[in-house]
Amino acid sequence: MRPQPPRRLVILTEGQWDVHHAKTAIGVMRYGRDASVVLLDSSIAGRNVSDWLGPGFDVPAVATLDEALAFRPDALLIGIAPTGGRLPEEWRETIVAALRAGLDVLSGLHTFLGDDPELAAAAREGGAAIVDYRRVPDRLETAVGRQHRPGSRVILTVGSDCAIGKMTVALELRRAALEAGLSGVFVPTGQTGIMIEGWGVSVDRVIADFVQGTCEWLVEQGEAMGDWVFVEGQGSIDHPAYSSVTLGLIHGCTPHAMVLVHRVGLTEHDFDHLPGASFPIKPLTELIPVHEMIAGLVAPSRVVAIALNTREVPDEVEALRIIRDTEAETGLPTDDPVRFGPTRLFEAVRAALEGAPR
Amino acid sequence: MRPQPPRRLVILTEGQWDVHHAKTAIGVMRYGRDASVVLLDSSIAGRNVSDWLGPGFDVPAVATLDEALAFRPDALLIGIAPTGGRLPEEWRETIVAALRAGLDVLSGLHTFLGDDPELAAAAREGGAAIVDYRRVPDRLETAVGRQHRPGSRVILTVGSDCAIGKMTVALELRRAALEAGLSGVFVPTGQTGIMIEGWGVSVDRVIADFVQGTCEWLVEQGEAMGDWVFVEGQGSIDHPAYSSVTLGLIHGCTPHAMVLVHRVGLTEHDFDHLPGASFPIKPLTELIPVHEMIAGLVAPSRVVAIALNTREVPDEVEALRIIRDTEAETGLPTDDPVRFGPTRLFEAVRAALEGAPR
Repeated sequence: MRPQPPRRLVILTEGQWDVHHAKTAIGVMRYGRDASVVLLDSSIAGRNVSDWLGPGFDVPAVATLDEALAFRPDALLIGIAPTGGRLPEEWRETIVAALRAGLDVLSGLHTFLGDDPELAAAAREGGAAIVDYRRVPDRLETAVGRQHRPGSRVILTVGSDCAIGKMTVALELRRAALEAGLSGVFVPTGQTGIMIEGWGVSVDRVIADFVQGTCEWLVEQGEAMGDWVFVEGQGSIDHPAYSSVTLGLIHGCTPHAMVLVHRVGLTEHDFDHLPGASFPIKPLTELIPVHEMIAGLVAPSRVVAIALNTREVPDEVEALRIIRDTEAETGLPTDDPVRFGPTRLFEAVRAALEGAPR
Repeated sequence: MRPQPPRRLVILTEGQWDVHHAKTAIGVMRYGRDASVVLLDSSIAGRNVSDWLGPGFDVPAVATLDEALAFRPDALLIGIAPTGGRLPEEWRETIVAALRAGLDVLSGLHTFLGDDPELAAAAREGGAAIVDYRRVPDRLETAVGRQHRPGSRVILTVGSDCAIGKMTVALELRRAALEAGLSGVFVPTGQTGIMIEGWGVSVDRVIADFVQGTCEWLVEQGEAMGDWVFVEGQGSIDHPAYSSVTLGLIHGCTPHAMVLVHRVGLTEHDFDHLPGASFPIKPLTELIPVHEMIAGLVAPSRVVAIALNTREVPDEVEALRIIRDTEAETGLPTDDPVRFGPTRLFEAVRAALEGAPR
């Protein structure tokens, strides 16, 4: 997957716009190199993304594809990541129409849109391309116990749940490294990260036997690009549905350090499960030693900082108090790198890795 | 995958016959419903499998396919499971000839032989079928937090490494359950188990996101067949290349109990890795709490017994002494269910689960 020139995007979230489900949409709007020019979602038509994300995000929401086409887009991007990764059937008509109108369709769904005969035909009609970002390369390799390049520092974001900001924290830390004049690299391991960065592998889509091997060579590629390598984590180590992918990342990347991400206020694991079952989020003080023990089964690693997502705490003073309390409780440097900038958190990671064996 | 009438098998291990690499061959000869009539391996031609496995295994080894055909086989079974699961290229000619001679070819390799144009053409010529046991079903589901059927007991075999006998221990325990008049079920999760039992899924071949979901519905199918459900484990929780598959089984099956399998004398993890790296096998006293802690991240479980593979201890008295010492060291019932029969180990598992919450 090679970098493309910037595009003008219609982001499709029809009926599912919220800061949780639309994490693909928001990640691309916040960090991507493409211009997000319009959001297609009739449930919030007439409003603007800036109502949720602030004045830096002037993206109007419209109700129909015809209205979106007035913004002269090049491509339509599927802005949600549903459980199981299937296409909501009610979106099919819109996607067919977009392809016929000549828009490329960019998708991170598990179901490959390019393999769908109706969509493929529509793409041919419109002279458009379908890009399935979750399609993984044919490079099927098991892990070989590769050592890190001397001088590199590999940092993996781990978390108390999925969809709480592990990609964002990795991107923010990379930004801080670059701002500090260091060579920072972001290693994308999920569809949104790949959409943002233009390379990477959706590791949850890889055949299970090759997850660790894939993480190993992704880190190798990252280390070829710079010294400070921030790997986007996936899932959580105690997630009933996704923990195996998380472990594949921990054991495949063998990070020098981990940054533990948590969303303040989160109490239950996020996934479609049968009624009656309850999967509570574990305390950070439990998750820290759990991650270090599990990583250490293959290669020693430490949790060196906590990244809190304080999005649901409107009051800034209250957010700062929670950060300070978490610091006291865990004994680790803690911050919200989106709300308060990543510099402080990055410097803590950097200090923790100074003089560490590499 | 539905049960077939028993077949007469040529087992192909060409140049790789040993009790370690030929684990597929040996598993099928020991436990399968098909008759293994001849072994095709020029490196041991003229000898007999009974030289290694004992008098119950009268399978002559021959050097050429022509000699093997004299035994009137119906099918040729690929008897090894190489790292990465690729076909040794030097076997291609033999497989083509077997297909042209009308033999079905049964394979558990990652590389699907049925997708190979030359092999597919040879199959058409000979009117033969290619069966790729590792091909997984299209049922792509993430885990949903399913609870066990009341009255069932789910036991997962876990281990200190791969290829040390986790499938065998599960099969032996199932046999003991049946002999005790209970409804015992074996849940195959790897190609050899599937070849033996005629159903199951090669979970290491499943897309990573669906490993836990697949384990969940495999256990559901097992519980529909009987009360005592023995799930074949894969890899090991500290394996640099395969631990994520192991974790997917633990968190996807949510077993009531685990039986920890270890091969006496094993000191290093078994996989193709770069020179210089060392991945020592951990002590059982460390692995027991590690497994219980990691399982407990999703659902509580206990290691209730140790199954030792004492194959490399020729002296029986010495093997018994090691078993007794392991029992003292771990505080858990310990036995070699292949060498000394599975009854004692099964009764220990049964006793541990009596009165346990289900």
